[in-house]
Amino acid sequence: MALTLYGYWRSSAAYRLRIALNLKDVAYTQKPVNLKDGVQRSEAHRDIHPQGFVPALADDDGVLIQSPAILEWIEETWPEPALLPATPRERALVRAYGAVIGCDIHPVQNLRILNYIRAEHGQDNDGVTAWCQRWIMDGFAALERMAARDALPGSYLCGEAPSLADIYLVPQAYNARRFGVDMSAYPRLMAADATAREHPAFIAAEPERQPDAPEDGH
Amino acid sequence: MALTLYGYWRSSAAYRLRIALNLKDVAYTQKPVNLKDGVQRSEAHRDIHPQGFVPALADDDGVLIQSPAILEWIEETWPEPALLPATPRERALVRAYGAVIGCDIHPVQNLRILNYIRAEHGQDNDGVTAWCQRWIMDGFAALERMAARDALPGSYLCGEAPSLADIYLVPQAYNARRFGVDMSAYPRLMAADATAREHPAFIAAEPERQPDAPEDGH
Repeated sequence: MALTLYGYWRSSAAYRLRIALNLKDVAYTQKPVNLKDGVQRSEAHRDIHPQGFVPALADDDGVLIQSPAILEWIEETWPEPALLPATPRERALVRAYGAVIGCDIHPVQNLRILNYIRAEHGQDNDGVTAWCQRWIMDGFAALERMAARDALPGSYLCGEAPSLADIYLVPQAYNARRFGVDMSAYPRLMAADATAREHPAFIAAEPERQPDAPEDGH
Repeated sequence: MALTLYGYWRSSAAYRLRIALNLKDVAYTQKPVNLKDGVQRSEAHRDIHPQGFVPALADDDGVLIQSPAILEWIEETWPEPALLPATPRERALVRAYGAVIGCDIHPVQNLRILNYIRAEHGQDNDGVTAWCQRWIMDGFAALERMAARDALPGSYLCGEAPSLADIYLVPQAYNARRFGVDMSAYPRLMAADATAREHPAFIAAEPERQPDAPEDGH
């Protein structure tokens, strides 16, 4: 099955899919969509992704959208190595880590939202940074509290091997550093992030290593 | 297994869980958390829900948070009637409908976000309404386009029976009406919403029927 990933080097949700496909050792071709050009809002792109976003993942049968849905599809299609634990309760825990990031941190600071608060609320760069930091810090504080209470033992966020939780954490921690968030307030997250970032599947998925990453990193 | 749902009558995410539990015919006790009082931000509540949100679902083994994770847990724990189709591709489609709402519509207009744009961006009621309408309309336009392209046949959003997609749609459509969004622009969503709202499991989950709903509906 030939897979095509429509993404963008710095898209947090595309980064998740790259990690998951790498962990499963599934090959894919990248079709970068330059979010800086606004091409994602074109009718042609909306025929691929009705929201005008990335990522989308296409195979011979059609196009899938929404990284939470695609991650579950990847897990169901290539079960090994498992990205979710065996019991429903542990699976719910791991998915909750993902949802804190995937629902309550990342979408709130999506490009369209930042464009809106600049245009309609008169926010400048400082206002945008404060906005992003606020939602990252709120979410990370909750995740750190979850990690203290509920974590499954191991050096990854939820166990001895990478899980869906790490797949969400690493791209969000990358964004957090980019927005100047002090990660030392979240020692458990920082440790899990450091562990995961040494894994070859995570390394190969890093934004700066993608074909559309600019050479100067900006 | 005794289940306790920490919710709020008007919480969209709690509304999802009520529908799902009703569809599975699983009994639960409600513990309302009055979001208007701010009690959700207390340390006591954060011991239940580290984000200071609702909903949370507790059983004898502990507390689960994040409605996307809890819905999957409900589906895995009580498989019948199924809320997801049988094939991975169809499951990904249904989950994508859920994620458009659960990630890109609902969290962006969460109470904490609305409080922030009032306090920090100087937005008044009109500004808040414009904000909510914008993200609902963006998301519903995408969902309507998905429903035209990819829908599984049937009078529900993704088939002949209620699925996860309807569980996300109905509470979001309720919110859309509350914020004055013109639903006639989304005929497929409106038809699916109307079908689902005639189902007893959806009726029993309606905000106004919950124990903490005020008698005057506000």
